[in-house]
Amino acid sequence: MDKFVGYKCSLCGAEYTEGQVTYTCPVDGGNLDVVINADLLSRSEAKHNVTSSPDPSIWRYLPLLPVSKMIGENTPMQAVGGTPVFLHPHSKEFGVQQLLIKDESRNPTASFKDRASAVVVARAMEIGKEIVVTASTGNAGAALAGISAAVGQRSIIFAPKTAPPAKIAQLLVFGAQVILVDGTYDDAFDLSVIAANEFGWYCRNTGYNPFTVEGKKTAAFEVWEYFYRQQGSPDVVDMVDVSVVVSVGDGNIISGIHKGFKDLCLLGWINQSPRIIGIQSENSAAVANAFFAGNEQIVPVRATTIADSISVDLPRDGVRAVRAATETGGSYLLVPDSEIIQAIGLVGKIGIFAEPAGATAYAGFLKAKQAGYFNPKSKVVVFNTGSGLKDVNSAMRSVQPAPIIEPRMDKLKELLKI
Amino acid sequence: MDKFVGYKCSLCGAEYTEGQVTYTCPVDGGNLDVVINADLLSRSEAKHNVTSSPDPSIWRYLPLLPVSKMIGENTPMQAVGGTPVFLHPHSKEFGVQQLLIKDESRNPTASFKDRASAVVVARAMEIGKEIVVTASTGNAGAALAGISAAVGQRSIIFAPKTAPPAKIAQLLVFGAQVILVDGTYDDAFDLSVIAANEFGWYCRNTGYNPFTVEGKKTAAFEVWEYFYRQQGSPDVVDMVDVSVVVSVGDGNIISGIHKGFKDLCLLGWINQSPRIIGIQSENSAAVANAFFAGNEQIVPVRATTIADSISVDLPRDGVRAVRAATETGGSYLLVPDSEIIQAIGLVGKIGIFAEPAGATAYAGFLKAKQAGYFNPKSKVVVFNTGSGLKDVNSAMRSVQPAPIIEPRMDKLKELLKI
Repeated sequence: MDKFVGYKCSLCGAEYTEGQVTYTCPVDGGNLDVVINADLLSRSEAKHNVTSSPDPSIWRYLPLLPVSKMIGENTPMQAVGGTPVFLHPHSKEFGVQQLLIKDESRNPTASFKDRASAVVVARAMEIGKEIVVTASTGNAGAALAGISAAVGQRSIIFAPKTAPPAKIAQLLVFGAQVILVDGTYDDAFDLSVIAANEFGWYCRNTGYNPFTVEGKKTAAFEVWEYFYRQQGSPDVVDMVDVSVVVSVGDGNIISGIHKGFKDLCLLGWINQSPRIIGIQSENSAAVANAFFAGNEQIVPVRATTIADSISVDLPRDGVRAVRAATETGGSYLLVPDSEIIQAIGLVGKIGIFAEPAGATAYAGFLKAKQAGYFNPKSKVVVFNTGSGLKDVNSAMRSVQPAPIIEPRMDKLKELLKI
Repeated sequence: MDKFVGYKCSLCGAEYTEGQVTYTCPVDGGNLDVVINADLLSRSEAKHNVTSSPDPSIWRYLPLLPVSKMIGENTPMQAVGGTPVFLHPHSKEFGVQQLLIKDESRNPTASFKDRASAVVVARAMEIGKEIVVTASTGNAGAALAGISAAVGQRSIIFAPKTAPPAKIAQLLVFGAQVILVDGTYDDAFDLSVIAANEFGWYCRNTGYNPFTVEGKKTAAFEVWEYFYRQQGSPDVVDMVDVSVVVSVGDGNIISGIHKGFKDLCLLGWINQSPRIIGIQSENSAAVANAFFAGNEQIVPVRATTIADSISVDLPRDGVRAVRAATETGGSYLLVPDSEIIQAIGLVGKIGIFAEPAGATAYAGFLKAKQAGYFNPKSKVVVFNTGSGLKDVNSAMRSVQPAPIIEPRMDKLKELLKI
């Protein structure tokens, strides 16, 4: 594996070789960044291989991923990523050049998290781990279960027993071994870490396993390639007017997107990182609070947002999440749950069904626009991170009930005032 | 519009020009087949254009569709179709050469029905209809609402007031005007037809509007193109050992798939239609009953299957659905709901989350295999027609509950017997 040279702690900067560490920094527990071998990559024909790949999935970026090969050909594993970028039909009305929605609900298990699970599972198989374990009640668990099933990898998922039975059902359908714990998400997290260490399982936990970010960075690569094509395949893609807007919970997705752009800077394929704007719910604002305070101290909150996928008391990847904004000239914005609910309907009206966490980014875009973040040259990529089918109850709160009539034309005419 | 020459009644064979009729045969109410202009097509460079199109969606087949242009570039409209074909990792164990799952849950609104809505909406815009209306409680309504939203087309959906609020919510999120009727699906169907005629709306109703089949036939084209590539791009693709297995409710999907293969035969691009095998639930067997009786008389049943998308008392496209099997050397099979539920778990274990109607086809494949339908040369394409996220309650019935433990290692070891 000469594509990555090791890890670097995001807190203390300590460097480790591939075999030295597996998860977080042994010194201070900081999240580890995977360091790719940019020398090798820029010398190689990586860019040609990437941009000419017939595979639309994340595996077209294999030269930039810290795994040696794609596994699971012709399975859902190979169908991760390559999600569509939709142009909002009324971009101009928002005072921007392009309002783009990147629709992650089109992933195999209908969320952004498939990107992480794909690379983590590939890594697990590469290092010969028979079992991948994670703590999750939601999209991360579904993604691990689904992608593992696709390639015949065993997965174990710890979830608090209070998790909604419907979410657990999906994990079980995928054949994952689900163990409910009589405790909180944090209890499930801790147990999964201890068990992984004792039993030699590979732990996927978000904000713990460095490879989740490596999977998530592929979303940044897809944004790069979108503009690469739009700008006529230049050597260096101009990202000056590009902003990326994404919702933030534990901070791992925004960190992953940031990592992707950092890798691209390292490779010299973009002139700078797009500005990254993180959006949190007012009711789950731990990362944004640190950003507003101008530091990297993540103080736990009591999260209560309706957007369950970003409802996080203690963000496990908070420091890097703050930096995604600070290091790119970006920002954080908070939106109330009422605007998140409203945003479900707004993106619905252009044919995209988003879960609350997905619609959060759109709500944040509207707030950022009002706050003067954009200009007529701006190209804004808003991520919808998950499908509205994952949380239909919230969707129901975003709409007015339909009228009921007797099935007769006179009643219909009365209703329609025709 | 020189790509299609008119319509032909599937019952009496009467032919009509494009402007003469809109929906069903004025003589006997039979479903109309759209007649494509095969002369023009084979003379043109249609095949080259299709197979070299960079667009993976259904719009790569525009030369074979009875609409003049793609609308909704860079919207979810353009992201319909191009669904992945997964190779079952244990194909050989089933005694076939290839067991392929075509996963329609990857469409924009997560079901096969998007194909139909895309072409119907394109047709509506082409003939200047301001409103598209349909009766539906489920996937067809969601597809019409979502695709209409994508391109700014107004849609109205009639549903019985007993429809699950969660399904109605999705329609409303997409901005469709939803009108609940105090009556049955049939009442909603009838009212939509009358209203469409009186108000000049365009009626999408399944088994009524001839363009739904034209959209659905694109799934057959994708199957053709899959084997076209696998066989090394021959002039004529060999379909002798190919079978297609699909679940059947109102009969429109199987009719659409059949139409696609008939068009391909007409074009000379395949040597014969694949064998088409329709699967119904024992609790919604109106089409299969006619097939077994050896006739085309569709006798209504009292449908009660758990697979709501194929729970149909009176199939509106029953005759053509019977013929899809009879004219291709295919068959019909019935499966009990218990096997449908079981099949959700079986396809889940290879990473595909299917709604009951989608898993029905897989259950039918297993039954057909046991009945000796296949041999080691068989290549079987099983359609998953919709996402399991559409009916999580059924998914819950397909799995065993997960165990609950205290979050302690000793309890975990006890559970795992480690």
